[in-house]
Amino acid sequence: MQAITFDNRQWFYVKRPEGRVGPEHYALRENVVDGALSSNEVVVRARYISVDPYMRIQQHERNTYDAPHPLGIVQRAGTVGQVVASASKRFSEGDWVLGYGGWQLYDKCHANDLQKLDPDAAPVSTALGVLGMPGRTAWFGLMDAGQPRPGDTLVVSGAAGAVGSLVAQFGKRAGCRVIGIAGGAAKCRYLIDKLGLDGAVDYRAFSDTPSLANEIQRQTGGVDVYFDNVGGMVTDAVIPLIKRRARIVICGTISQYDGGLDHPDLGPRFLQHMLFQRATIQGILARDFVHRMDEMRAVVEPWVKNQQIVFEETIVDGFEHLPEALNMLFEGRNLGKLLVRV
Amino acid sequence: MQAITFDNRQWFYVKRPEGRVGPEHYALRENVVDGALSSNEVVVRARYISVDPYMRIQQHERNTYDAPHPLGIVQRAGTVGQVVASASKRFSEGDWVLGYGGWQLYDKCHANDLQKLDPDAAPVSTALGVLGMPGRTAWFGLMDAGQPRPGDTLVVSGAAGAVGSLVAQFGKRAGCRVIGIAGGAAKCRYLIDKLGLDGAVDYRAFSDTPSLANEIQRQTGGVDVYFDNVGGMVTDAVIPLIKRRARIVICGTISQYDGGLDHPDLGPRFLQHMLFQRATIQGILARDFVHRMDEMRAVVEPWVKNQQIVFEETIVDGFEHLPEALNMLFEGRNLGKLLVRV
Repeated sequence: MQAITFDNRQWFYVKRPEGRVGPEHYALRENVVDGALSSNEVVVRARYISVDPYMRIQQHERNTYDAPHPLGIVQRAGTVGQVVASASKRFSEGDWVLGYGGWQLYDKCHANDLQKLDPDAAPVSTALGVLGMPGRTAWFGLMDAGQPRPGDTLVVSGAAGAVGSLVAQFGKRAGCRVIGIAGGAAKCRYLIDKLGLDGAVDYRAFSDTPSLANEIQRQTGGVDVYFDNVGGMVTDAVIPLIKRRARIVICGTISQYDGGLDHPDLGPRFLQHMLFQRATIQGILARDFVHRMDEMRAVVEPWVKNQQIVFEETIVDGFEHLPEALNMLFEGRNLGKLLVRV
Repeated sequence: MQAITFDNRQWFYVKRPEGRVGPEHYALRENVVDGALSSNEVVVRARYISVDPYMRIQQHERNTYDAPHPLGIVQRAGTVGQVVASASKRFSEGDWVLGYGGWQLYDKCHANDLQKLDPDAAPVSTALGVLGMPGRTAWFGLMDAGQPRPGDTLVVSGAAGAVGSLVAQFGKRAGCRVIGIAGGAAKCRYLIDKLGLDGAVDYRAFSDTPSLANEIQRQTGGVDVYFDNVGGMVTDAVIPLIKRRARIVICGTISQYDGGLDHPDLGPRFLQHMLFQRATIQGILARDFVHRMDEMRAVVEPWVKNQQIVFEETIVDGFEHLPEALNMLFEGRNLGKLLVRV
């Protein structure tokens, strides 16, 4: 019997970037995936491939929260796709699955590495967004580390992004006054009009920290919870505005990913504010809450089903655009979750 | 009947310092305290007057953790003294008491503002040190915020100071490996020989952050708990060395008190380390644990009684030296708790 084969396209990660990621750091290659399967093997054809800020962290040469992403292998990434060949009783051709096949069209993997998706329960792409890693990060980062209380003022940086836009909405549902910080007037309108936030600050409209801080102070009157996705000047502006026993959640420092992790730039010292306000800072990662995914889904899935939550997606069409799409994250060109449809 | 009077000497706080405190910021005055007492009034003759780093924080014009210390009043401070006149049933002449009379020889106050001391239970001066505010800060800062576990590596900055020297010893008793950071070879010898620490780093022997960090890394192999009294370059060096789920306790930032609170200097951005290690920073103040003083005393008082803990005191003799003694804190000229005997 002649086994079927699949013409695969793959983005290999081949060179560590010093600053911004460019086409020279990836190589587009082709190979053939053999459809002859061992027991429990499955071939998945990706349909949505994820691009996430954490990928840029892992491109650093030194250890960050992981060993560096190796050179010369397919860029790791979460994917949503369909089974096209299966030697597993659990999966049939056509099944939608969440996997971790990376930036390639076809992935041959063990059935245990896949999670079946119900396309009737929620749009399958949400498994990479609101019901996936970004949703988990937002939910536990805010609820566990941020400890929001009704009446609290919550400030979210990167508020129009995949995680930030969810944090902001979860904060509203927890009874907080929510002020989002984002880049550009369009995103700020989106925060107010679509997400229903109580305020929005366009950080790009301010050329220095004091003027940005003044505007944030004007809109907030002080900050109880700061959910930080960006770091840098935005965080410099927010921290001196914290109130008594404020909780600062460090979920990302995206402003620093293009070189600032290896060669930190300088910012104003702020630890005295932690002392004066008896505040806390806590760093969180999505992986710390994988084992609690069911808790998050139990609450958030009904909101998705009933369209009670906005889970914007920015979709880039075309496998060839993956490296460029990664860059879009650092230029703030996405609204909500950024996906590449392939 | 002719009431007795007391010839009082007082240090008034009269001018806000911009940088280092100098004699021009205080004025020595004299007055007479009338010994004619209303019901429950007591006159206390101070014997030990406290000088503490927090005093320099409160000299700032803007709000820190308190409204600024007003100008034109006696410098506030904790004192240990003896009752010399009493209209309270609870106090008799000669009783030793802890009070908050400030930098003056005599204080007429309400009995409720005093706490009786038992000179047989512990040296009375310990009420301003190991069994007082600094002890409370050290105990709850470490045990509550720092969450030390046996086997943890604890780094203490300002380790030869009033709070740091206690934190270091409490950490040893909690089963930690303890490395102290202090200024000068003599203090480092003290940390090893007298406090029994596992290592000591003389930060003054290093002219830049990377070389200081190398030495701390060499001695620690990574940091589980960092109890920070100083901030600045020492903290710049320690934070990148934190291990998974490290706890950073911000108890003080003494390196920044001479102007750096109003005009923060710049330091390397470090929030990515909080993210990578899922670490926490928590600011603490002594006042947050006043209601739990009995918990601390129940554990620590027996150690004091049985001489199982070192509670070094640096004693300056002479009321006239109070402002100069305050300055000694910022020059690192004290070992353990700094007191002025009057």
